[in-house]
Amino acid sequence: MLGDRVDVSFDARRAARADKSGHAAAGLPIAVVHAESVEDVQATLRVATATRTPVVTRGAGTGLAGAANAGDGEIALSLRGMDRVLEVRPDDLLAVVEPGILNAVLNERLAEHGLWWAPDPASRAISTVGGNIATGAGGLLCAKYGAVRDAVLALDVVLADGRLLRVGHRTVKGVTGLDLTSLLIGSEGTLGVIVGATLKLRRIIPGETCTIAATFTGVRDAAAAAAAVTATGAQPAIMELLDAASLAAIHAHLGLDAPPPGTAQVTVQTDGATAADDAAVIARVLTGSGGRVAITRDPTEGERLLAVRRAFHGAMERLGTTLIEDVSVPRSALPAMFDEISRIEREYGLVIPTVAHAGDGNLHPNFVFEAEPDSAGVVEVPPRVWEAADALFRAALALGGTLTGEHGVGTLKSRWLADELGDDQWEIQRRITGVFDPDGILNPGKVFLR
Amino acid sequence: MLGDRVDVSFDARRAARADKSGHAAAGLPIAVVHAESVEDVQATLRVATATRTPVVTRGAGTGLAGAANAGDGEIALSLRGMDRVLEVRPDDLLAVVEPGILNAVLNERLAEHGLWWAPDPASRAISTVGGNIATGAGGLLCAKYGAVRDAVLALDVVLADGRLLRVGHRTVKGVTGLDLTSLLIGSEGTLGVIVGATLKLRRIIPGETCTIAATFTGVRDAAAAAAAVTATGAQPAIMELLDAASLAAIHAHLGLDAPPPGTAQVTVQTDGATAADDAAVIARVLTGSGGRVAITRDPTEGERLLAVRRAFHGAMERLGTTLIEDVSVPRSALPAMFDEISRIEREYGLVIPTVAHAGDGNLHPNFVFEAEPDSAGVVEVPPRVWEAADALFRAALALGGTLTGEHGVGTLKSRWLADELGDDQWEIQRRITGVFDPDGILNPGKVFLR
Repeated sequence: MLGDRVDVSFDARRAARADKSGHAAAGLPIAVVHAESVEDVQATLRVATATRTPVVTRGAGTGLAGAANAGDGEIALSLRGMDRVLEVRPDDLLAVVEPGILNAVLNERLAEHGLWWAPDPASRAISTVGGNIATGAGGLLCAKYGAVRDAVLALDVVLADGRLLRVGHRTVKGVTGLDLTSLLIGSEGTLGVIVGATLKLRRIIPGETCTIAATFTGVRDAAAAAAAVTATGAQPAIMELLDAASLAAIHAHLGLDAPPPGTAQVTVQTDGATAADDAAVIARVLTGSGGRVAITRDPTEGERLLAVRRAFHGAMERLGTTLIEDVSVPRSALPAMFDEISRIEREYGLVIPTVAHAGDGNLHPNFVFEAEPDSAGVVEVPPRVWEAADALFRAALALGGTLTGEHGVGTLKSRWLADELGDDQWEIQRRITGVFDPDGILNPGKVFLR
Repeated sequence: MLGDRVDVSFDARRAARADKSGHAAAGLPIAVVHAESVEDVQATLRVATATRTPVVTRGAGTGLAGAANAGDGEIALSLRGMDRVLEVRPDDLLAVVEPGILNAVLNERLAEHGLWWAPDPASRAISTVGGNIATGAGGLLCAKYGAVRDAVLALDVVLADGRLLRVGHRTVKGVTGLDLTSLLIGSEGTLGVIVGATLKLRRIIPGETCTIAATFTGVRDAAAAAAAVTATGAQPAIMELLDAASLAAIHAHLGLDAPPPGTAQVTVQTDGATAADDAAVIARVLTGSGGRVAITRDPTEGERLLAVRRAFHGAMERLGTTLIEDVSVPRSALPAMFDEISRIEREYGLVIPTVAHAGDGNLHPNFVFEAEPDSAGVVEVPPRVWEAADALFRAALALGGTLTGEHGVGTLKSRWLADELGDDQWEIQRRITGVFDPDGILNPGKVFLR
């Protein structure tokens, strides 16, 4: 039925075991289906339902929670080949796309129309729009321009039994029945296979950008300064925070002079008609909070300042194996959360370099450890690191935060899900998956495993 | 158990039969429970579950789709008395409130902190935040500042069996499990009783506002001009359109000179740092589209121009009985939708004065008819008007639109719900209500009735 879209090669099956979390599923999937059309997806799901075979949907495999990892007895359904832009409507500020298109490629195409899709995960050059939607991805610009949940109007979804459902609206407003579009955003492959998306676009922001880099003698001061920026009401487009371990690692990675020990950095970018005024206000706040501030209206110099932040993941890869976490706290709790991370570093004898999207309170603590990869190149996270991650999650929840701001639950955080949701909500969520997928063939063991 | 919060007086029960749609439930509810606390709501739901008694949740009764109307054998559960602001956090841009507070009262309280909650239904002076959430309300400012779905972080919900559930996050980002907060927004009392809300706030926009009123020789030209404004990329805070019948009725209502026959009006307000520049661009587009344009930066004069729009509902009440509809279309389809309304007026021999939130494509056609109220003051919509409404809904769907942009489905639009959703989605939505409410006691017969 699916012909050569069914790939049973060892290499394809091995690649489908893992995502960018470094974690992998046990065993190998039966096959990888490289879907080229909605009909291919429907055919795959019909076979899966008839044979009660689990299906793990996959985009570019850049997830950081293991949700797209396919293992023994499972079909890996790749949508990467469905990457067309079907419609761009500047007058209605919407685009209709297939799920496999890369975020950055879509935005190049939209730029020709003076448009953009705001969600900008750090992985945007290598991650798909469908994956962004399935995880409810965020990014650097979220505090000002919103996350995926704010940027999707409608979805086409293939159900577990192969039926095609269209949910949502092409209109800005619409309250006809329950909001299944929002329910599908961030559902990590447990409700259906997203085969099309109607995206809510913005016009490219006219005017200059201003960039500020401020260094602080400690991460707590940097975090307090970032919280103070939020409290003034000035709205950064980007506000990123690098703690001392991150900054030192990045400087080493980029061949820059080592920063003084303990130095943390806040990088801010403002845009739009008020970019210069906002930057001036923010620079004053950062200076008043003890920061050494550099500010520029030159785009090239601005990109140079931001390049330090953008080198974070590369620098981490050189430190060893990392478990990348993703807690989020109310913005006023950023300093307290960094205190907790320091405490956990001491208690567990770990180094946890942390970058934060400080404009929205989302932190990525990176647990660094030594481990030998297995024959498939996959490493297991040591128990001590999981214990420290457990302490991190509990600290975030105690501060009014959440386990995951933008990466999702997948396999890596499923054991903590009920801690955050409570048993009653966990059970209701699990039952909702049963409405969409009564046989439990869609990404079983992900998200809702206990 | 509930003492004097249980009101069995005839007047209270009669008032709970109807909302502002003019439609009423058959018969009288058993009682009105005036809840004063979450515990009162829980006690009510426990009794309801034990006795399988339907519960209709109610705020201020300003709904326009009949969703809060309670009839024979039902409990009307009023949350109007739960109206406290529990927390305001300017640093985290959030507030925690009880559901019964009026939208305008909340915004007065928030203004003391330099904050506001953006959803601004035309009913904001008389409608509750809980009702706004339960219907997924919109308003005039949505195109620029979003609707309810963009402005709620978390909800406290009492389930049908009396359990209290807390869904969502206090954080800007959060993707832990399924987005039940969005699912509850606009669920019209079918999933649970919203007893608390954590709202996403904005800072009051600094700077001036500019107001533009433009008149056109026909509604089609006015609609085309509004669509042209959207297509330029200039972002109005408010863009309202009044067709000729509306404008004439308002002028008569306000004692102003009658406008020339056929005259339609577009009223625009811009705000923020670029208010004057945006207004200049928009005025040029409106003039270029054939409009006679007045523009002002004076707030008093601006309010005078907007007062014409704000008098719409008062003017309609003087025309006779109205059925207020709420279709929404992609913004580029506004002119075509007005053509369809003209066609329906001719075909059904009706006058359908229409106001549109032209910035987001949401139209409120008012079907005016003569009818005798029954002994309870309630009128039945004549079959011919329903037939015209049916034609309106089909026209909106054919243009890529939706039945309801912001009022909800309730009882008045439930018979068309499956036409928009399709049978498969309708069934999935109905089954989701069963996960929350297995005995079907929450607002039965609303939304999902066929």
